[in-house]
Amino acid sequence: MPKKVNHEQRRNKIAEAAWRVILENGMEGASVRKIAEKAGLSLGALRYYFSNQEELILYAMRLVKDRAAERIEQIIHRDVPPKQKMLEVLLEIVPTNRQTRAEMEVWFTFVSYARHHPHLLKEEGDGILAALQLMFEYMESNGLLRPGIDRQLEIEKLYAMVDGLALHVMLEPERLTENQVEKVIASQLDVIFE
Amino acid sequence: MPKKVNHEQRRNKIAEAAWRVILENGMEGASVRKIAEKAGLSLGALRYYFSNQEELILYAMRLVKDRAAERIEQIIHRDVPPKQKMLEVLLEIVPTNRQTRAEMEVWFTFVSYARHHPHLLKEEGDGILAALQLMFEYMESNGLLRPGIDRQLEIEKLYAMVDGLALHVMLEPERLTENQVEKVIASQLDVIFE
Repeated sequence: MPKKVNHEQRRNKIAEAAWRVILENGMEGASVRKIAEKAGLSLGALRYYFSNQEELILYAMRLVKDRAAERIEQIIHRDVPPKQKMLEVLLEIVPTNRQTRAEMEVWFTFVSYARHHPHLLKEEGDGILAALQLMFEYMESNGLLRPGIDRQLEIEKLYAMVDGLALHVMLEPERLTENQVEKVIASQLDVIFE
Repeated sequence: MPKKVNHEQRRNKIAEAAWRVILENGMEGASVRKIAEKAGLSLGALRYYFSNQEELILYAMRLVKDRAAERIEQIIHRDVPPKQKMLEVLLEIVPTNRQTRAEMEVWFTFVSYARHHPHLLKEEGDGILAALQLMFEYMESNGLLRPGIDRQLEIEKLYAMVDGLALHVMLEPERLTENQVEKVIASQLDVIFE
């Protein structure tokens, strides 16, 4: 009986190889040949799944977002108080462990590269701003938004803080510990929510 | 009489040509040949000022920082109240006009590229965290820090917010206007200072 290959698994394995190549060599070093080599596949086998480099890179980038979305989905269904839940979701966005930090670094590298390669820019954004809007609505509907808070302004502040922390964690992992990141975000949530 | 050439001016002109090439093609497209062409110089003339690409790129990156530092220096010597002064300095760091936005984009592109080219990483950081420390000390010595404020925590929050805003302004200049950036930063300064 021929071995049944799970196509999605194979595509994801190739995408993860692409992440590793991007982390090691940057986007400009992420050739299809190198990614095939890293994935332990022939160029022909890889081309069966992705017909060109752009298709492969876009798939690899969507996988970064999908993985983060899955982890956030799990947190949302956990039975914890709303504010704690929001903190945990934001800590998922600001990557504090090695795996999520690598994903974030791949993402930043891609965003920076895509600015000079407009044909990749059709790729949608990271979805963080939309997620924050939803979280604020959820908190408000639970009566947890502090009175007198300017919602849009606080969303903008928290959005900037979260992405700034993500950038700093990536650039200075020694200086900014997981503990500190949590303290910074928790303190901002205390300003906004009861 | 031979024309006297101001060497620093010439080097800066080449560095600015490098910025334009980086903005158009990304770091991987910033060859010495292309930069010479953009600067209107022969390769030989350019090599008189910079013996290799790395030397040129590092000079161009330091010029980004030097230009920002010069603008900040001017603000510091202006006769305005401390909090207003701090707001103006931070607005210099979060680039809201076309010229400073281009400089920030060159900087981000460089930082992203340098992570995969460790020989460039000896380049010192952007100096923003150190500048924030000084600003907080200045505000505190003027008795303007609100009582009960955790200084280190607030520095970390403001640092993240400023770099997050810089990133968002670069990626979404249409969404985030100069006016909004000012509102966000001013609102955070009101939390921290009297």
